[in-house]
Amino acid sequence: MKASILIQTALASGSLGLIYALLTAIRISRASEGNEKMQALAAAIRAGVNAFIKREYLAIFVAATLIYLLLLTYIGLWSAIGFVIGVTSAALTAFLGAIISVRANVRTADAAQQGIKQAAATAFRGSFATGALVASFSLLSVTLSFLAVKSLAPLSSLAPEEEIFRTLVGLIFGGSTVSVFARIVGGIYAKSADVGADLVSKVESYVPENDARNAAVIADSVGDHIVDNAGLSADLYETGTIALVAAMLIAGTSFGTESPWVEFPLLIGSIGVISTLFAAACTRLAGKRQRIIAALYRGALLASLVSAGALFPASDWFSGLSLIQPALSAPTITAIGSIGLTLTWLIIGITEYYTSKGFAPVKSIAAASESGHATNIITGLSVSMKSTALPVVAVIAAISGAYFLGGGFSASTGTGLFAVALALVAMTSQGGVIAAIGAYGPIADNAASISEIAGLSEETRNITQSLDAAGKTTKAITKGYAICAAGLAALLLFSEYAHAFSTRTFDLVNPAVLLGLFIGGLLPYWFGSLLLTAVARTSGRIVEETLAQFRDIPGIWDGSTPPNYGRCVSIATRSAILLTLAPILLLIATPVAVGALAGREALGGLLIGTLVTGLLQAIALTSGGGAWDNAKQYIEGGMYGGKRSLSHIAAVTGDTVGDPCKDTVGPAIAPIIKIVAVVALLTLIWVPTQIA
Amino acid sequence: MKASILIQTALASGSLGLIYALLTAIRISRASEGNEKMQALAAAIRAGVNAFIKREYLAIFVAATLIYLLLLTYIGLWSAIGFVIGVTSAALTAFLGAIISVRANVRTADAAQQGIKQAAATAFRGSFATGALVASFSLLSVTLSFLAVKSLAPLSSLAPEEEIFRTLVGLIFGGSTVSVFARIVGGIYAKSADVGADLVSKVESYVPENDARNAAVIADSVGDHIVDNAGLSADLYETGTIALVAAMLIAGTSFGTESPWVEFPLLIGSIGVISTLFAAACTRLAGKRQRIIAALYRGALLASLVSAGALFPASDWFSGLSLIQPALSAPTITAIGSIGLTLTWLIIGITEYYTSKGFAPVKSIAAASESGHATNIITGLSVSMKSTALPVVAVIAAISGAYFLGGGFSASTGTGLFAVALALVAMTSQGGVIAAIGAYGPIADNAASISEIAGLSEETRNITQSLDAAGKTTKAITKGYAICAAGLAALLLFSEYAHAFSTRTFDLVNPAVLLGLFIGGLLPYWFGSLLLTAVARTSGRIVEETLAQFRDIPGIWDGSTPPNYGRCVSIATRSAILLTLAPILLLIATPVAVGALAGREALGGLLIGTLVTGLLQAIALTSGGGAWDNAKQYIEGGMYGGKRSLSHIAAVTGDTVGDPCKDTVGPAIAPIIKIVAVVALLTLIWVPTQIA
Repeated sequence: MKASILIQTALASGSLGLIYALLTAIRISRASEGNEKMQALAAAIRAGVNAFIKREYLAIFVAATLIYLLLLTYIGLWSAIGFVIGVTSAALTAFLGAIISVRANVRTADAAQQGIKQAAATAFRGSFATGALVASFSLLSVTLSFLAVKSLAPLSSLAPEEEIFRTLVGLIFGGSTVSVFARIVGGIYAKSADVGADLVSKVESYVPENDARNAAVIADSVGDHIVDNAGLSADLYETGTIALVAAMLIAGTSFGTESPWVEFPLLIGSIGVISTLFAAACTRLAGKRQRIIAALYRGALLASLVSAGALFPASDWFSGLSLIQPALSAPTITAIGSIGLTLTWLIIGITEYYTSKGFAPVKSIAAASESGHATNIITGLSVSMKSTALPVVAVIAAISGAYFLGGGFSASTGTGLFAVALALVAMTSQGGVIAAIGAYGPIADNAASISEIAGLSEETRNITQSLDAAGKTTKAITKGYAICAAGLAALLLFSEYAHAFSTRTFDLVNPAVLLGLFIGGLLPYWFGSLLLTAVARTSGRIVEETLAQFRDIPGIWDGSTPPNYGRCVSIATRSAILLTLAPILLLIATPVAVGALAGREALGGLLIGTLVTGLLQAIALTSGGGAWDNAKQYIEGGMYGGKRSLSHIAAVTGDTVGDPCKDTVGPAIAPIIKIVAVVALLTLIWVPTQIA
Repeated sequence: MKASILIQTALASGSLGLIYALLTAIRISRASEGNEKMQALAAAIRAGVNAFIKREYLAIFVAATLIYLLLLTYIGLWSAIGFVIGVTSAALTAFLGAIISVRANVRTADAAQQGIKQAAATAFRGSFATGALVASFSLLSVTLSFLAVKSLAPLSSLAPEEEIFRTLVGLIFGGSTVSVFARIVGGIYAKSADVGADLVSKVESYVPENDARNAAVIADSVGDHIVDNAGLSADLYETGTIALVAAMLIAGTSFGTESPWVEFPLLIGSIGVISTLFAAACTRLAGKRQRIIAALYRGALLASLVSAGALFPASDWFSGLSLIQPALSAPTITAIGSIGLTLTWLIIGITEYYTSKGFAPVKSIAAASESGHATNIITGLSVSMKSTALPVVAVIAAISGAYFLGGGFSASTGTGLFAVALALVAMTSQGGVIAAIGAYGPIADNAASISEIAGLSEETRNITQSLDAAGKTTKAITKGYAICAAGLAALLLFSEYAHAFSTRTFDLVNPAVLLGLFIGGLLPYWFGSLLLTAVARTSGRIVEETLAQFRDIPGIWDGSTPPNYGRCVSIATRSAILLTLAPILLLIATPVAVGALAGREALGGLLIGTLVTGLLQAIALTSGGGAWDNAKQYIEGGMYGGKRSLSHIAAVTGDTVGDPCKDTVGPAIAPIIKIVAVVALLTLIWVPTQIA
């Protein structure tokens, strides 16, 4: 059977990715952890990450059990099973990534004592282990669920295609649940810890920012892994699975569930895993200047080129198989896939333009800082609003291009939607590499903190600091990619939603559709406000606790007694979970309630409303935040009076405002968009039996 | 003929409103202008307003001539005629209102020497003259255009209903053109002058904010009339005409063009004019505490009650006429109208809640100011995002309620859309009163500045200052009302658009609709960014000019030579126009281009996309700005350390950031939403002959 070759390929390449991750993890754990002080710090960070994940996963477990029971009762066994697979894979991706990350940090610091090449190699290893996990788990979880339901569905009373649909939607719902927690709870935790640690060093001005006596300092280092490793991984894992599932379901609709095209997206996913491993093998410092960012970008570009290069032979081989309807030729598929890969680089380029020091937007914010806090903020807001245009236009252009190539405008073929899905699968097949770039950040950041706190030699500290600087500039890019890919994924889910409900249309003239559109449009605003407030409250609690420790634990000042780092981690974790558990459940309940009360047309409107305002708000907040951050760094580089000038003070204000925008609210909107779309699909299965 | 009774009523009440405005203007101009110094200041402000309007109207004239020729060439004579009527009425409304306003200001200051009662009476007179102009001009321009086209259309080669449609759409396009200029150019001018004058007094710290030697001070006073009188008037005039036109067109579709229901909306408009005059007669200080805001609110509430009370007898009388299909009973119409009136007060209440010192949102921003600039801004952003939810929910509830009462959910009657239009007409029939509340602001503000600069007695200055304080709190409310009414108006235009194009649907599954939705969604972001930048640049030019005058004109310092106020006005005007003329034309061209290139479905999507993100962004920016402003004032009232404390400095930053948001960007979005909808309707007339 031809299909099984594709599935075998997917299983093989997914397993290869996991084996790479495992071997890399072993190799990392064998490296030296450095001196005792470094080991103690690393142990504290590790304990913090474990404590956070334990509590967060408890919250996820509670929510997931509730959802599992609801799925079992109202939708059926297969969705529930898919859900469990999704929750487990997403949780494992995030957890294993973080575990490797908290081991690579201190080893990178130690390797820095031998030179930048060794340090970078260790950091890259840790990052690509995470990348391989993301790419492999999304491919494997979809392949295995599909294989299981396909083998066992004939035993069920429902039609096999219905069971496949339910299982795969359950699967992505599982991923969404973990991802929404990871981005929201993790985002609040990490930012609060960061702000808290900063504020303490400002209040107690004799304590430097990175000082072992500051009880919040470990919570801050922990937060980096939580947000840039675990949060990003879960998010990209989710988008990867949604892309594969959407493409497979659309193929089933267009060509029939038995068509080999249903399994074709898994082939692109397999290429993605292999290209990630290829990039992992080739990413190293090169040239005289040994620039780290250049190395990371070179690796990512290589992955894209490998993917693009493999597309033609793979689709040519595929279309040579018998049983294939010649709906799309190999050159067309190659062109469609290249659109997805190009979109990845367009988004990277646009994000670079709006957030990096080399271009006009950031420079204009830096210049505006000369006239004070308010002009810095106003200019930042202006950049933030303007930054939405190009990414949205790029996404629209990519959709239109793929749709056109797929013959979407021609009534005779009509596989345009499948083409858009393939373009997205090609884009998300780069999710592993993007996750690696993102995961590099916390490793380098921790390495810099550890070598500073542990007092390593200045030479070593310079090396870890240059590693850290590179990590800071790549952050914005991973977010831009995650948001645009999530938007596309949600759009495809909407198509699937609309298709599954083909008896009526989502006409904007219908008041129910408009009602849904407005309520959906509100969600990102409402959630944004909630998250900003949660960060402010949680960071306040961390400052209180840290100052209380200075007061109550006698030996902290002279360094004889270490502060209770764990309490800060625990307070931030508890606060983040308590402030968001109810809103997250409410978020999941909103589409269900709208669907049940106002009908399925309203639900379709809601999905699109959340997508439109969510995409714009998410881009505006992350790009704006990144621009503020880099405007401050630009000034710190000596422009407009440099550090400690009035411009710098104003730029610090902008950076502080931008921080929760870019690290908490903006990234959290992507999973919000996706979970609304996934829940809408599930509601669709449930609602027909309830209302007309 | 029954119809003519309604038209006669409309003509009579519209004329009554104009007569009231004229008599009031005469009465105001006969009052004393005070001493020589006051007269000189008032003359300078008057000259500034004239200079601004002259230039702005020149720009409007150029743009309008271009549009007129395009309409004449591509659409036909009747649209072009309607357009001219619309431009003229809107321009007259704004111009006459401003003329009265710049005469009432100094007379209010003079009357303040006799007591608060006399001062308030003069200010109220000036405000209600503007209110009467807004209510009367929108009613009269629609009635006259309708009458003219109805009498002359039989001479045309097209069907009469087609000519009526084209004329009325041309009419509202005329209003939209003026309103978009008034809000955008006026908003940039006013805010730049305000910021410029403030900055000068900060740079030259020996010049107080209101000082005759500051060349920007007159430009600042001029700006208040431009934005809160002329800008608001044009905006509300436009929304009023759109509501009437939409209701009449929808009635024509539902009941046939010859049905008396087509003219029924004019009856509600007439009630609106009469209730405005009623409020004008009854608004005066009362009670022991002589609170000005209470007097204004009492007047507005009275107008709503009069309107609500008149609805039943009026519709009962109307439905007693022969020829009327009993589609809607008198009690139903009364209920529908009351929904519109209730919505007005709901929006007022919600805006109060989010922007006034008495409630949690503003207090939370004030409290956050204690920890500095950044927390002030973050909390303000959080309030700003949260403030979008209730107004949108209120608008949705009002639409659903009216739609339900109109039998929208029942297939047998199907007049739900007309009911929504009637609710909006009832809401916009209060536009006169809201314009009066808004127009009160610049009169009181100028009166305070004039008495301060002219050095009137402390007692007088206290009176004018308490008048001014009241004016500041009412500003936010007029904006909230203007935005929500504009949103509703655009929604009705979309229904009309969709109806006129009934062969296809605006299905969200259609890629063209989605493309339009995203491009439309971008517009408010893109324009918002552009306006923020324009304010920053223009205010910079004003500061330069003012400082140059201090340097170059020898007698300014000792007060022997007055500065050249006119140059500041002229620089700000020119800069505002030059920076926005091209973008405004681009804004008007966007729907045409999307319609012509991507089709009419894409244009429908564009309209809704602009509406959804525009409504949310406009509410967020105006409420957020208002909240920042009042948080500063709350602290100035002695909380958190009071004036000159660190909290106050942080709150000033928030206020400065909020200023262009609430006074320029937010209010400009309402006409942007409307003009996109109007141009879409016009494009619809043009496109069918071009593409399929």
